[in-house]
Amino acid sequence: MIARHFTRPARSAGVVLGVGDDCTLLAPTPGQQLAVSVDTSVAEVHFPGEAPASAIGHRALAVSLSDLAAMGAKPRWCLMALTLDHADDAWLAPFAQGFDELCARTGTDLVGGDVTRGALSVSVTVHGEVPPGEALTRHGAREGDLLAVTGTLGGGAGGLAAWQAGERSLDDPLLAAYLLPEPRLDAGQALRGLASAAIDVSDGLLADLQHLCDASGLGADLDIEALPLAKGLVERLGEGAQRAALSGGDDYELLIGLPPAALESARQALDALGVPLTVIGRFTAAPGIHGVEATGPGGWQHFSGVTS
Amino acid sequence: MIARHFTRPARSAGVVLGVGDDCTLLAPTPGQQLAVSVDTSVAEVHFPGEAPASAIGHRALAVSLSDLAAMGAKPRWCLMALTLDHADDAWLAPFAQGFDELCARTGTDLVGGDVTRGALSVSVTVHGEVPPGEALTRHGAREGDLLAVTGTLGGGAGGLAAWQAGERSLDDPLLAAYLLPEPRLDAGQALRGLASAAIDVSDGLLADLQHLCDASGLGADLDIEALPLAKGLVERLGEGAQRAALSGGDDYELLIGLPPAALESARQALDALGVPLTVIGRFTAAPGIHGVEATGPGGWQHFSGVTS
Repeated sequence: MIARHFTRPARSAGVVLGVGDDCTLLAPTPGQQLAVSVDTSVAEVHFPGEAPASAIGHRALAVSLSDLAAMGAKPRWCLMALTLDHADDAWLAPFAQGFDELCARTGTDLVGGDVTRGALSVSVTVHGEVPPGEALTRHGAREGDLLAVTGTLGGGAGGLAAWQAGERSLDDPLLAAYLLPEPRLDAGQALRGLASAAIDVSDGLLADLQHLCDASGLGADLDIEALPLAKGLVERLGEGAQRAALSGGDDYELLIGLPPAALESARQALDALGVPLTVIGRFTAAPGIHGVEATGPGGWQHFSGVTS
Repeated sequence: MIARHFTRPARSAGVVLGVGDDCTLLAPTPGQQLAVSVDTSVAEVHFPGEAPASAIGHRALAVSLSDLAAMGAKPRWCLMALTLDHADDAWLAPFAQGFDELCARTGTDLVGGDVTRGALSVSVTVHGEVPPGEALTRHGAREGDLLAVTGTLGGGAGGLAAWQAGERSLDDPLLAAYLLPEPRLDAGQALRGLASAAIDVSDGLLADLQHLCDASGLGADLDIEALPLAKGLVERLGEGAQRAALSGGDDYELLIGLPPAALESARQALDALGVPLTVIGRFTAAPGIHGVEATGPGGWQHFSGVTS
């Protein structure tokens, strides 16, 4: 049953020996570096177990591919470790379809897998390639670099709120942002040589910005009025919209450092891809993230102007 | 806490950028093929959740490395997706130690990971390298090739029986075989150019032999009197010892096809490594596995002389 749902012809010439032996054999492109990452999505922790199976398949791959996007790597291969509480065609077929459609669209070959019995979770290891020295990292930002973000923020948290409020239509833009995130692969590759640092927004803007600051040994001024809020977020969350954009997570946008001289080139490159880019602050020599306004008791004070 | 337990200096020059960014960056060895595989170990399915944490760490890596052994690949890198129902130092420290000791002994670098909350399971993706054309596969056996196996069989099933009977000492050879299997990495590499086909015995000898036969388009005569039984297996299981050796699984020995002319060279190569090699049959043009004796009602009849 598993083989029927997941066996696809390889899409790239790099697969020397496909699924069906003890290992898959791959031929990495000579001269390229290999970017690898693994992410596990657990039902009721990372996604609702009752979400459409196709969305679960899409999302499990998307969150791993998002790590390749943040490195500016081009996706090549993935392996899936799937743990299922029950297995039936009615669930596996759309799950595999959702996974495979994103594979096809991003040029990713599923080259290995393991299916076990247990609580529903999906762990996806992804492999991408990037020319030596061109990978985007977290540690390359410099003082004075602009801080910019692709797309919009808060959609992940807004979509989760929509789901919890009973919304089930994937036509709802927030729910789609949460369940069907689109990894910014083309944007990541287009930003090679332009962005000084990058991370994907998975934990939430503030947490991921802190990762960039820590890795680069810098702080940041953040203009929270400039945050590009997801469509429908204010209607869904009201005053909580800004909080969702700051710390909701699950947005899978790219948060980048950008030398001011590279802003125009970056805009043009992303415009050509139809990806919005918004400047939301800048990196500072002074540590800590400044400019975040306290929103109430227990709000953002500990992120506000505090040295790290 | 996780970083404290799992961060180790990289052991190989191939790690360009280690754990701590969105991806790890690796430099594959030019001219080598990459062998990749993933295996998930779920508590109470693949191992007892109450087993020593160090053994759980060792075993989760060992079962994945065993797939590299079966390809004749040299291990390089691994990624771990760990799902924990609870996390405390008292468990994580020995778990990481068991995992890391096997990494160190096999030259494997842990280059990525993800830790999530849920029912205890460990999914390990491994990467090895092998020169083009030299990988051992399942499909290379020829009619007349000898069928041989490294080490002994039945230890996995015998060790599980020992655990279920209350044995807890890892000095018990059967329990050690079950909880601390040793992937036959050196043997696999030594068999390059000698073995015509290979698989590791994870599902059980008969099931894995069937995989070899299916992939190679052959059948096999199996001399069940020749099976090398694990030490203590007859004492533990009595008349069930042979059954454990035939279908118990979890032995992680290499089952290989071997042209008769290569037998002496293979013996010498494995002798030098201290790894026993036992001829247990031969591949036949006639499909099906023959020579397995029925052991009682519902026994081995469906494997015995039946065409596949």
